Amino acid sequence: MHSSLPVYVNSLRVGLKLKGMRECKVSRTAMDNPLMLMIPGPTPVPEQVLLASAQPPISHRSLEFQTLMAQVTADLKWLHQTQNDVLILASSGTGAMEAGILNFLSPGDRVLVGCNGKFGERWANLCDKFGLITERITAPWGCPLDPQAFRRHLEADQAKQIKAMIVTHSETSTGVLNDLAAIAQAVTVHAQALVIVDAVTSLGVCPVPVDTWGLDVVVSASQKGYRMPPGLGFVAVSPKAWQAYTTAQFPRFYFDLGEYQKAAATHTTPFTPPINLFFALQASLGMMRSQGLAALFSHQQRLMQATRAAMRALDLPLFVPTDTLASPAVTAIAPEHVDPEQLRSQLQKQYGVVIAPGQDHLRGKLLRIGHLGHICERDILTTVAALEATLSDLGHKIQPGEGIQAVRCCFDQI
Amino acid sequence: MHSSLPVYVNSLRVGLKLKGMRECKVSRTAMDNPLMLMIPGPTPVPEQVLLASAQPPISHRSLEFQTLMAQVTADLKWLHQTQNDVLILASSGTGAMEAGILNFLSPGDRVLVGCNGKFGERWANLCDKFGLITERITAPWGCPLDPQAFRRHLEADQAKQIKAMIVTHSETSTGVLNDLAAIAQAVTVHAQALVIVDAVTSLGVCPVPVDTWGLDVVVSASQKGYRMPPGLGFVAVSPKAWQAYTTAQFPRFYFDLGEYQKAAATHTTPFTPPINLFFALQASLGMMRSQGLAALFSHQQRLMQATRAAMRALDLPLFVPTDTLASPAVTAIAPEHVDPEQLRSQLQKQYGVVIAPGQDHLRGKLLRIGHLGHICERDILTTVAALEATLSDLGHKIQPGEGIQAVRCCFDQI
Repeated sequence: MHSSLPVYVNSLRVGLKLKGMRECKVSRTAMDNPLMLMIPGPTPVPEQVLLASAQPPISHRSLEFQTLMAQVTADLKWLHQTQNDVLILASSGTGAMEAGILNFLSPGDRVLVGCNGKFGERWANLCDKFGLITERITAPWGCPLDPQAFRRHLEADQAKQIKAMIVTHSETSTGVLNDLAAIAQAVTVHAQALVIVDAVTSLGVCPVPVDTWGLDVVVSASQKGYRMPPGLGFVAVSPKAWQAYTTAQFPRFYFDLGEYQKAAATHTTPFTPPINLFFALQASLGMMRSQGLAALFSHQQRLMQATRAAMRALDLPLFVPTDTLASPAVTAIAPEHVDPEQLRSQLQKQYGVVIAPGQDHLRGKLLRIGHLGHICERDILTTVAALEATLSDLGHKIQPGEGIQAVRCCFDQI
Repeated sequence: MHSSLPVYVNSLRVGLKLKGMRECKVSRTAMDNPLMLMIPGPTPVPEQVLLASAQPPISHRSLEFQTLMAQVTADLKWLHQTQNDVLILASSGTGAMEAGILNFLSPGDRVLVGCNGKFGERWANLCDKFGLITERITAPWGCPLDPQAFRRHLEADQAKQIKAMIVTHSETSTGVLNDLAAIAQAVTVHAQALVIVDAVTSLGVCPVPVDTWGLDVVVSASQKGYRMPPGLGFVAVSPKAWQAYTTAQFPRFYFDLGEYQKAAATHTTPFTPPINLFFALQASLGMMRSQGLAALFSHQQRLMQATRAAMRALDLPLFVPTDTLASPAVTAIAPEHVDPEQLRSQLQKQYGVVIAPGQDHLRGKLLRIGHLGHICERDILTTVAALEATLSDLGHKIQPGEGIQAVRCCFDQI
């Protein structure tokens, strides 16, 4: 496996030297000591999922593929807690978002978009680009969207011109978990607007009961809660959304979900699927099913609570102070007495732990610790230990062990 | 690795039984004896490419990824023999085709589409769906497109209303290799129309010198000549096409190639890339570069010539009789005294060799043997031996060894 890597591994070393940073003390290549990804995607992936993806491709027009397709489709419905169609695209999450718009709306339609972070803004930009009339329901980055603001807008729309309400469930850029249940409930006053949801960092991480909450279009991507590599997008589609599909006017071909639905009826895909990623999907969903939804979600809660307890103990302010508003996918901190970029850089160089910076105007102000995907308790302990060590390395006075102790107590209690 | 497979492997066996077919004599699972893919994609993939793809994901916002991205981009330009941008999409080839239209044309534009097979028709359908005024230059399936027909159409367009000429280089559905050089040359009488090309089964298989031939937009996909799994699409874009981009009016977001170009300038991607497929791409392009273009193409010529010689020896009529019109990616035969579907089915069940059926109206009439991707001389020998054996099994009188002998002679001579 090393043979394919020398160029980038060498360049990594050269690059570090060029930037004048101290070289990593531990000799590291991607294989013998990969960096530890504590970012909100791509996430670590179980070895058996990676190995499943390395099987020789099979024909996508075969009984084997049909059987595989039938199984992953059933498992996806289980994960979404839905009877709706769940369709699989060869695309990133953004491709799935685009499919979620193109198939159910027409140019000039009015849409309400919740914007309290980068991914809410991405929805709004996408809608703007496609010539929709986009109205933003905003909240400051780091604060949750107000379900009542949606309700007021929808109640005021007596002419029923608003065709969809678009919400990001877990806002990856800030670590806010929007109250999707309450926001979806707000739509019931309107009856017509579709509920279109970005569940990219909530599916597999916390409950997204699609049918119970009445979500019409739910978009996700493989490199997050699915515990697999990037490259697949998913769109769950309700009967109400299929109704809207029949009159939607955007031109579409590759992302025409009707074609995917038609093909799925015979357990296939309209275009060549990324077969090896389907192998990975089969393996990862199989692991998830064997754990069960309740265990998956309580595991994520433990990781989040422990991370938050450690940040408090280390005096690293939580960007989302209230636990009930926090995403179990990612914890954002806004360090006050530490340069975030120096902390992040040193953590990676010295200890091989990668955390994410803030995005857009919060770059240089925020740090984001991802704890979704194939992450266990030990990984949280490791990350907090490395953070403690890095803070000490950078000359910050901390009481060694306080973060670790907070993690331990948390795991003890919940 | 077996753990992820029991369901589909079991179902494969059950499925075969249910259909009343004789069970395969050789106990087979996807791992211990995978079916041999002699179809025009997905192709067999070298083990080191599969293993490269099974490495733990890295962050796509990292120096490691930038270095990887810079390397694969340079290697893609080498493969395309171009100085133009070559952009990488998370999509199938059809997604790349759509990007090749959306970014350079506007609703109502006139386009000339070459149609002599299923993939030419797919271009035309795509153009129709997007509201272009599509004029088809047709030839019967199995016959090549006439460059002069393009020239006549373009000469007649004094008002320069035709914005693009769209051609499938290697028509996978029939095994015809269209004369792309001559067709592209025909555009020079027009000066304005873009040359948009589907090189999905010609890149890496036969010369596609993008700059020499003046190709403006060239689309391909990873599961063909690239010798890797499906999931990546590629689009090469000329300066003339970028000029058209500035006035193109289709709404676009996920497939907005301008964003990919902007990101590529700093060796990154606008959306999360399928990182593990990038590892595979790096490995496969590395192998291809170490072989060299001339060796790659002459290897493919040998495989094609040997396959064609064997079909002649076995009295299985070639659908494209003239060697110079035949694609080095796939050889189609139109058996006269054998039921194609019975032959194909028996070949797979008894000997584990998968070949492809005809498509659309040629299903049940044609068989297609793919010989692109990670295929060697031995694989052609194996396929021909299995074909001979299957013909005998089905009671057809053939002289055993004639096909094999033809292959051997061919390899001896070229």
